[in-house]
Amino acid sequence: MSRARARKIHAQTVEGRRAVLEALRVGRDITRIMMAEGIEFGPQLSEVVVLADQQSIAVDAVSKRELDRVSHTAKHQGVIAVVADPRYSSIEDMIHLADERGEPPLVVVLDGVQDPHNFGAVARTANAAGAHGVIIPERRSASVSPGAIRASAGALEHVLVAREPSLSRTVRYLKDLGLAAIGLDAEGETAHTSADLTGPVAIVVGSEGEGLSAQVRSECSELVSIPMFGEIASLNASVSAAIVLYEAVRQRSLAAETTATG
Amino acid sequence: MSRARARKIHAQTVEGRRAVLEALRVGRDITRIMMAEGIEFGPQLSEVVVLADQQSIAVDAVSKRELDRVSHTAKHQGVIAVVADPRYSSIEDMIHLADERGEPPLVVVLDGVQDPHNFGAVARTANAAGAHGVIIPERRSASVSPGAIRASAGALEHVLVAREPSLSRTVRYLKDLGLAAIGLDAEGETAHTSADLTGPVAIVVGSEGEGLSAQVRSECSELVSIPMFGEIASLNASVSAAIVLYEAVRQRSLAAETTATG
Repeated sequence: MSRARARKIHAQTVEGRRAVLEALRVGRDITRIMMAEGIEFGPQLSEVVVLADQQSIAVDAVSKRELDRVSHTAKHQGVIAVVADPRYSSIEDMIHLADERGEPPLVVVLDGVQDPHNFGAVARTANAAGAHGVIIPERRSASVSPGAIRASAGALEHVLVAREPSLSRTVRYLKDLGLAAIGLDAEGETAHTSADLTGPVAIVVGSEGEGLSAQVRSECSELVSIPMFGEIASLNASVSAAIVLYEAVRQRSLAAETTATG
Repeated sequence: MSRARARKIHAQTVEGRRAVLEALRVGRDITRIMMAEGIEFGPQLSEVVVLADQQSIAVDAVSKRELDRVSHTAKHQGVIAVVADPRYSSIEDMIHLADERGEPPLVVVLDGVQDPHNFGAVARTANAAGAHGVIIPERRSASVSPGAIRASAGALEHVLVAREPSLSRTVRYLKDLGLAAIGLDAEGETAHTSADLTGPVAIVVGSEGEGLSAQVRSECSELVSIPMFGEIASLNASVSAAIVLYEAVRQRSLAAETTATG
């Protein structure tokens, strides 16, 4: 039950006192209500709590920072209802999956990849490489669409995908969770093979045309580049992600061998 | 001049006595005529030699084996005219390019990849990884088409592409030239990272649906597989090629460092 609930977090939100109250009144499929710690109760919030109780929906007191992180509108007035969207999971699910498997988290963050084929191809490789999830932004990004699912050869039915309102805040959050945010950037001075990918890692990949956005780039723990020797100055985003994901697989398998024999 | 000529070899052929004679008579853009060593001259071959001489086209005596390798019809009657096709190069060009750069040859052989996007994507990554060429079969394969060039982000304007009548014969020929033919195959018992990719190498990649053909597989020096940990049992052909190409880049860069410091 708690697992099923956790999988829905951040998927879709209803924000603000009146909107949350209305969602409860019309019986929307609400997974959880988040309320700011120490918030003052007026008549609307009181009714929210009563209706949530009647419908057995948990009301959790959370920090304002957590509300801000989950918010898509920045106008949540201290209350957000999380609505189920089975296509999406949460970052917490990914961490949980890594824990379950006894592996350091390995996730891909896609910054502004708009082509559903590229997104699907990344999901497919992420699945093959045993990564724990793919994180996309809500805006200016491909999403879990029929075209992307087809391009993923069905991998999007298996890979956890989180959809976040702000990728730069997400990268900061991933670092708070102990992940190294490795950004792929042509300006990265070290090769991707020089980065240590054996610990908890988020691989941050930009869009084909524009690379990483300035905000996301500035949040990365480290910038690396894939060495290029030809006339063409960039790689396809899904190819870049694949090269670094499989470098992580190689390093991790080597580290496991060393531990086993050492 | 000799370089320009070498770039056209195997691109397109006119085969058999009457056909070669006709091509000379109508003034086709013939690069070179190959004739079996010790062949008996009748009136047709005599006229071929006279016309070729008038048009300053070289007539080279070659072994029957070489003619068989270049032949697309297996009915060459001991004489083949090579016709210019600027889109394609030869395997010899690739070896020459590697020599010029002082690098061990690194080429990709694509067995039955029919999607122009996949072919274009492989060419793009091959260019970025500094590979010396991509080899495709004449039949049941994507070719250098406008769609493939677009998908390659223009890399197909730079990467040498050879188009061969028989890939299994081509793989055998590459081995004769001293390349290890590393086939990517789900049945490969060792991981791609265990193969030594620092020497002269041909990476042989199959089509998405069917993998390597039995004939091509049986000619490979070694079969390796890319480890997969998810629910999806295969990778996109262009992603597979990218992963192994960049493993070669990694190994070669490491070997160069070791040599430099050792």
